[in-house]
Amino acid sequence: MLCTRCIRGVGRQVVAATTRAAAGGTASPLLRMEVPKPKCLEHPINVPTKLLMGPGPVNMPLRVHNAMMKPMLGHLHPEFTQVMDEVKEGLKYIFQTTAEVVCCVSGTGHAGMEATMCNLLEPNDVILIAQNGIWGERAADMARRHDADVRLIKKPPGDVCSLNELESALLKHRPAVLFLVQGESSTGALQPLEGVGALCRKHGVLLAVDTVASLGGVPFFMDSWEIDVVYTGSQKVISAPPSVAPIAFNDRAMEKVRTRKTPIRSFYLDITWLANYWGCDGLPRKYHHTGPVSSVYALREALSMVSEEGLHALWSRHSSCAQRLYSGLEALGLRLFIADPAKRTPTVTTICIPEGVDWMKVTKYFMSKYQVEVSGGLGPTAGKVWRIGLMGYNCIPENVDKVLKIMKEALANEPLLKSNL
Amino acid sequence: MLCTRCIRGVGRQVVAATTRAAAGGTASPLLRMEVPKPKCLEHPINVPTKLLMGPGPVNMPLRVHNAMMKPMLGHLHPEFTQVMDEVKEGLKYIFQTTAEVVCCVSGTGHAGMEATMCNLLEPNDVILIAQNGIWGERAADMARRHDADVRLIKKPPGDVCSLNELESALLKHRPAVLFLVQGESSTGALQPLEGVGALCRKHGVLLAVDTVASLGGVPFFMDSWEIDVVYTGSQKVISAPPSVAPIAFNDRAMEKVRTRKTPIRSFYLDITWLANYWGCDGLPRKYHHTGPVSSVYALREALSMVSEEGLHALWSRHSSCAQRLYSGLEALGLRLFIADPAKRTPTVTTICIPEGVDWMKVTKYFMSKYQVEVSGGLGPTAGKVWRIGLMGYNCIPENVDKVLKIMKEALANEPLLKSNL
Repeated sequence: MLCTRCIRGVGRQVVAATTRAAAGGTASPLLRMEVPKPKCLEHPINVPTKLLMGPGPVNMPLRVHNAMMKPMLGHLHPEFTQVMDEVKEGLKYIFQTTAEVVCCVSGTGHAGMEATMCNLLEPNDVILIAQNGIWGERAADMARRHDADVRLIKKPPGDVCSLNELESALLKHRPAVLFLVQGESSTGALQPLEGVGALCRKHGVLLAVDTVASLGGVPFFMDSWEIDVVYTGSQKVISAPPSVAPIAFNDRAMEKVRTRKTPIRSFYLDITWLANYWGCDGLPRKYHHTGPVSSVYALREALSMVSEEGLHALWSRHSSCAQRLYSGLEALGLRLFIADPAKRTPTVTTICIPEGVDWMKVTKYFMSKYQVEVSGGLGPTAGKVWRIGLMGYNCIPENVDKVLKIMKEALANEPLLKSNL
Repeated sequence: MLCTRCIRGVGRQVVAATTRAAAGGTASPLLRMEVPKPKCLEHPINVPTKLLMGPGPVNMPLRVHNAMMKPMLGHLHPEFTQVMDEVKEGLKYIFQTTAEVVCCVSGTGHAGMEATMCNLLEPNDVILIAQNGIWGERAADMARRHDADVRLIKKPPGDVCSLNELESALLKHRPAVLFLVQGESSTGALQPLEGVGALCRKHGVLLAVDTVASLGGVPFFMDSWEIDVVYTGSQKVISAPPSVAPIAFNDRAMEKVRTRKTPIRSFYLDITWLANYWGCDGLPRKYHHTGPVSSVYALREALSMVSEEGLHALWSRHSSCAQRLYSGLEALGLRLFIADPAKRTPTVTTICIPEGVDWMKVTKYFMSKYQVEVSGGLGPTAGKVWRIGLMGYNCIPENVDKVLKIMKEALANEPLLKSNL
């Protein structure tokens, strides 16, 4: 008896023969191939194993990979909406919120940022953006595309805003929205958030926070810190694959959405549609779009692991691994880019490139000899720093020690010096 | 000696203990949890096995699932950009194009539609949309959100536009863009595309085509049919997970993008940025966003399978399975919603609900007794038809026969009749 695969093979041959007869074979001018089969798809996919100690994505636990082996379900099947409901509960825990609208944008972190902008902003709305790295720049780019009136508080890379600075800027610009980045992965800076929400409420401003590179690695309390919109990525501390961006809008934010005078410019990112698809509005789910089913399975498992470990343990694991990394780097004679420990996010550590060292030769040494990723700078820190990520699954003392060992080796390696010295 | 997992476990306990000491334990008011760990994440994820014979997503081959077990890579690592390049070659083959800008939007099919609209349209641009089902409605919704001047050619559900009708409408509305849906999955209609591109060039119009529910199931030739923009989904004939939307812009379409007077409103969907990230513009890749790495692996493997089978064989497999389904349904006394076989897409077959039958009881019979999905109607066909999908991995004669067997059983089952008869 033939197995199903063999039967299918036979079926295919029969079908192909039938069609050649029916369509006159490949010689039929209507069906003549103009682009041949690509040769590059004839060999197996090549994906080496690396330890990703850059600013994300990070390696994933087997349990998260395994979730993507689960069979496909329809995007509105009850078993899938059950998984979505479980994801929502996990997100409410990690965001520390009881907001109703907690869901995912079906895209990566940047899609979360864009969803924030396109839902909150109308043309000529004033948005105040703290800019101390690439994320503030990206946010400003997006807000301008939505015809918002963008005002900036510029801070040097690595620095953050004080409550006083924020209040002065709120009074000066009278924005509708204040946008902050908790963990600036391009500089390693951690923006303190306590007290900002209260300021914003006092001045009638909505507070939106990017936590892509920080959530799960440092304390975050959406409700008690009075944050109106927050989004994150799946491929950082959460340790799921990139492709979904968790997002939450509280009632104040939803009120702004509901009272818009102009339509939300994106259908795909329209939070009222997303809230319905994710069962956040109490109404029967309508077909909005096809959710990324396998990615949502993976996120569910990753959030389940976050919940099992608990946020306190997760935060402290990041804090203690970062301390171990800081001490080790200083013992190697390296200087951290951010001098004040209170201003550092434990998830991304930035290290000044020592005089005379070619930073790229060091990152290449990590990769070529050990298949370990550490990164160079990005945006305002390009060429000035290395960035080492400690996030989620990869944030363990053994990995810290491995990175330190390789760094020591690399720095002892004469050819890493710049050739012109 | 402890295994890595055990070491990690120990590490975690140490870390947790350290933090309790440092932060004063969970009693610290600054770190007090307000939202507890969700109970629902304590049990294993529940994903039953179903055979998805609706209009998508479809089940995936093991090889595609396996691709998502491959280790994570950075979104700009050379091994990942190699996989992206291979995806591009596979897409050029399945789209039958040599266009330079062939890539993926990091979202599902709707994101492909939105990318088409937001890149091609500026405020007050006239777009002509053929509307014979839900996709034309969605396209019109999106185009209006971008402040385009939307004109419609309305056709009854199940019908399509003739070349004469299209030319009259082009002359009447003088649009900048004509938007057509090749496979209208809400009605089962197949829009003929040959000759439409030539008409559009004659009248200086850009032609954009949605092939989400049709590509790979029926012939499609982007270049020789002179189609300027095309997009599709990953979870239909291609049989990868939903989360990436392949898209192609030819030179005419890119010229329109390059000569815009207003910015593209979406950064995430900006085709000039996407083209750079996907290595389509000959420039060094810049960091745009984090691509959905695991999903791109899966798409690569699915496209490799498409290429191995070959488009002729793939098209004929869909055509012959659809014929088998049509004959079988007619033998059961059922009537197809689209009378003219030339107007049917083989990928989604619509069947009129017989008088007196409760359609939902039938779909529930399929699901509860056999865990097989067949769907009801959508949009204009809701309550009027069943929809049976024959796409990619699921499009084999054995599945056709299974669906026919269950349908026969279901219709013979007295309680399926409406209770009020």
